[in-house]
Amino acid sequence: MATATEADAMRRAIELASRALGSTSPNPVVGCVVLDAVGRVAGEGWHRRAGESHAEVDALRAAADAGHDVRGGTAVVTLEPCNHTGRTGPCSQALVEAGIARVVYAVADPNPTATGGAATLAAAGVETEGGLLADEAAAGNAAWLTSVLRGRPFVVWKYAATLDGRTAAADGTSRWITSAESRADVHRLRAEADAVVVGSGTLRADDPHLAVRGQPTPGRPVTQPLRVVVDTHATITPGARVLDDAAPTLVVVGEEADTRHLPGVDTVRLPGEKATGPTGDGKAGIAVHALLGALHDRGVRSVLLEGGATLAGAFLAAGAVDRVIGYLAPALLGAGPSALGDAGIATIAQVLRLDVTDVARLGPDLRITATPTVPATAPATEEN
Amino acid sequence: MATATEADAMRRAIELASRALGSTSPNPVVGCVVLDAVGRVAGEGWHRRAGESHAEVDALRAAADAGHDVRGGTAVVTLEPCNHTGRTGPCSQALVEAGIARVVYAVADPNPTATGGAATLAAAGVETEGGLLADEAAAGNAAWLTSVLRGRPFVVWKYAATLDGRTAAADGTSRWITSAESRADVHRLRAEADAVVVGSGTLRADDPHLAVRGQPTPGRPVTQPLRVVVDTHATITPGARVLDDAAPTLVVVGEEADTRHLPGVDTVRLPGEKATGPTGDGKAGIAVHALLGALHDRGVRSVLLEGGATLAGAFLAAGAVDRVIGYLAPALLGAGPSALGDAGIATIAQVLRLDVTDVARLGPDLRITATPTVPATAPATEEN
Repeated sequence: MATATEADAMRRAIELASRALGSTSPNPVVGCVVLDAVGRVAGEGWHRRAGESHAEVDALRAAADAGHDVRGGTAVVTLEPCNHTGRTGPCSQALVEAGIARVVYAVADPNPTATGGAATLAAAGVETEGGLLADEAAAGNAAWLTSVLRGRPFVVWKYAATLDGRTAAADGTSRWITSAESRADVHRLRAEADAVVVGSGTLRADDPHLAVRGQPTPGRPVTQPLRVVVDTHATITPGARVLDDAAPTLVVVGEEADTRHLPGVDTVRLPGEKATGPTGDGKAGIAVHALLGALHDRGVRSVLLEGGATLAGAFLAAGAVDRVIGYLAPALLGAGPSALGDAGIATIAQVLRLDVTDVARLGPDLRITATPTVPATAPATEEN
Repeated sequence: MATATEADAMRRAIELASRALGSTSPNPVVGCVVLDAVGRVAGEGWHRRAGESHAEVDALRAAADAGHDVRGGTAVVTLEPCNHTGRTGPCSQALVEAGIARVVYAVADPNPTATGGAATLAAAGVETEGGLLADEAAAGNAAWLTSVLRGRPFVVWKYAATLDGRTAAADGTSRWITSAESRADVHRLRAEADAVVVGSGTLRADDPHLAVRGQPTPGRPVTQPLRVVVDTHATITPGARVLDDAAPTLVVVGEEADTRHLPGVDTVRLPGEKATGPTGDGKAGIAVHALLGALHDRGVRSVLLEGGATLAGAFLAAGAVDRVIGYLAPALLGAGPSALGDAGIATIAQVLRLDVTDVARLGPDLRITATPTVPATAPATEEN
């Protein structure tokens, strides 16, 4: 049974882990607090990016740098300590060597190449306990856990619209539907994602930049996401803003695309896919899972899907959206493009239901966070 | 300066007034609490419907029925007592005759035929004080106050949509997008409105009934609203559910419409109006202000505009929506009709901005209440 001191330390470890969101892929975010033998905080650490120290080693080093003795102490860590030797040594071994007597962790490591750390620790005589604040810690690591379980990146679809679901006016103008607060929040989402994805329609309409501007979260260093443009026919021009050097960019094109006008641009070719849903128009669309597989192969574990309506529809139709974040401006347009295009839904029984997990006010706007759920069929007997 | 006891009495009077929302037009809702000379509650009353006792008289009678002496007492009332003799005698006179020494009211009466009650009371030696909890009382009487100030009914536009702004799936099916809780709340809105208005598109698509079902607010008797169908070409069939005897119904047709298939149906003819906005398609639309004038002439002081998208667009374009209530289901469709049609808005600078006054959860849904505001122009210099 974990102590109150250990629970406090775990809350702190979860907060430490979150500092590196968007910077650690393909690794998880991990935080660690090391307590000495009498329960005082001896060192804190977190995993900053792939190739650098794991959280446990970082915390042990902080304790050593501060001159604290951790022998007989406890390591409180958000994820089960790893058992494998990757670019850094296994953490379980480092904890044993430091004389740690007890390890409390939140989430068991589901990664088949890393799991087993708790068993290794126990075999070395270290007391271990898992599950402390597991839900909170798992929520902080949702992208990485999803990517391990599903073999593809965690996908957040973000949209910004009026109350009547429009993302631009009838003439295509859209600056600005949402508030400055909402737009700043989007930069935070970008900073926490490994990749930001847009389609060619958004590219042509908005010529977006897609890099993170400023430092959305004070005290947290910004890692620019990979900017990904899904552009089946390679219509992007070399002068597109997304091709500047503010962040890396990947252009995803179809097998037949002519990319000779894009020398030096990082491109990947993917097969197209016929739209086959009930409302499919037979036009070749993007092979969503092939795209996500290609991104996963490049170490991308979290994707922010920013637009537009067609691409979002394809992702939703493919069951490849894990979270929806809608910025709703208290405004009405009555005409103009909708936030979401064809998702293969022809009739109300096929409606994609979500669970709302959070509603926040951002300036005048509402931010609604929701997770797709299994469609429930409702009886249609009631009177109108 | 009003006492704490008087403030408590005013809060109670506001609550009493609200019991008759939807039943008193063309009169306001009014509540009254009479305190005796030492500040004890002697009687409570409210105005139940036009032609019946005003709140002050109702409260004085309740006090008399209970055998309480109100001489030297105080009447606490949500609206300045009336000074005119309509179907009932002037309240100011009744208060003087009952020996009331002090009258505390919230909102001054803006109605030119009723105003002056406070002056009459003061001339008779009664101490008067206005403004106590005026904002709360005015909010409870928003429909009536708006109708007096603008000479037209107060208009609430209600819509129910998915997060992407759809009111039905691609095939027109829509039962049910929103939750049972949201649909019950709509029956409350209907019960509080004098009239419920739909267009002919909604009529054809849904064959709605539009009457109040059950008793949406426990303890509050239901007054059925006037059901109004805007049907320029008189396409409604005699078997439409809205033409049953559950509530009165008015069919609004154009000047040229042939209504010979509707014997016994209450109809009104209004001139059409060319759509002239930037996105207008030149088709004849509804003359919104003529419609509201006709309803006002029939004593309607509050209108619940239920659909559809075309009619809502016409009302918004005419500046004739005072409140927007959106029921947003956490669901996505990606296709299907939008909640709002052409409102004459062609470009982002013309966007109709609202102020959100309330956000509530109704089962899984969100209910957003908002009020149109003056459009603000935002600088379009920021990067995307």
